[in-house]
Amino acid sequence: MLLCPSPPRWLDQALGDLDTLLLDHAHCERRAASTVLGFSFRAPEMEFAGQMSRLAREELTHFEMALRELRRRNLPFVALPPAAYAQRLATGMRKKVLDEAMVDSLVVAGIIEARSHERLVLLEAACADPHLKAFYAALVESEERHAAQMFALAERWGDPAPRIAFFAAQEAEIITAGEDVVRMHS
Amino acid sequence: MLLCPSPPRWLDQALGDLDTLLLDHAHCERRAASTVLGFSFRAPEMEFAGQMSRLAREELTHFEMALRELRRRNLPFVALPPAAYAQRLATGMRKKVLDEAMVDSLVVAGIIEARSHERLVLLEAACADPHLKAFYAALVESEERHAAQMFALAERWGDPAPRIAFFAAQEAEIITAGEDVVRMHS
Repeated sequence: MLLCPSPPRWLDQALGDLDTLLLDHAHCERRAASTVLGFSFRAPEMEFAGQMSRLAREELTHFEMALRELRRRNLPFVALPPAAYAQRLATGMRKKVLDEAMVDSLVVAGIIEARSHERLVLLEAACADPHLKAFYAALVESEERHAAQMFALAERWGDPAPRIAFFAAQEAEIITAGEDVVRMHS
Repeated sequence: MLLCPSPPRWLDQALGDLDTLLLDHAHCERRAASTVLGFSFRAPEMEFAGQMSRLAREELTHFEMALRELRRRNLPFVALPPAAYAQRLATGMRKKVLDEAMVDSLVVAGIIEARSHERLVLLEAACADPHLKAFYAALVESEERHAAQMFALAERWGDPAPRIAFFAAQEAEIITAGEDVVRMHS
């Protein structure tokens, strides 16, 4: 579904500053939990609310795992400005009609999950630190199904296919351009 | 710490409409998860962030348990206006200085938890439905320590004692007045 692989430059940047990458990763997991919990508030319906709740708990578990890795490296959990990626990716999201907003929000969330998964695979393969390698391996497994889950959920509110195509094209441009800062989604 | 017990009128109202009480309860648990997750964003510090994350996961587990009880009763999970309680209780919260805002937010959250716990004990004792009784019993046990935990956390930002006294007095007035709608905190 992703239209391009991560450029080699990103992996070089990431391996060159695993501490910053890990701090950003912790923030990403907590932000993801907050985002899916927010989805559940926008559409009060039992099955969807239950799924978002379980997903939020899973992201929070990953957040706590990232905190443990930070602690193991004697790094503090401090504020860090996010990559521009998510904000750029959100360009063009339809917000006025609830059904359209739900489709676009879930599609964008699914694309972010797909990119996370692609990068976790790269990190697991390239990372020399055995603790961090195990951490990435655990996440690869549990995050594998998230993108497909988001796209399937979007179908309740409309056809996600054209929006997946739109946002995936936009995402490929953002990823190809890259960023100077070290982030999970730079 | 609570300055008055729940008036008998509240328990009569609750037992008279357990369906509405349960729906409100589900919303309360999800709102609580969102609140504690919000706390963690306001004070990025590892230990506090980890505690808030675990607490949010616990509240989400309770939310999912409440959803299961709704489903067992063939009730839909739909929107429901909250009790006026939390908004009234928040009157007088200091918001401008972060330290004061954190103390007051945690104290108010702790008082709400204490009232929840007091009412869960009443519901467990009075409820005739064995499934619902077991649900309340499970929550009584796990929510027992939440109030004390909130007050202890508040100490990082200031002395919570005078604020506990202030908000507890305010809470007793709100609870004594009661509300006409059936809610966990009416």
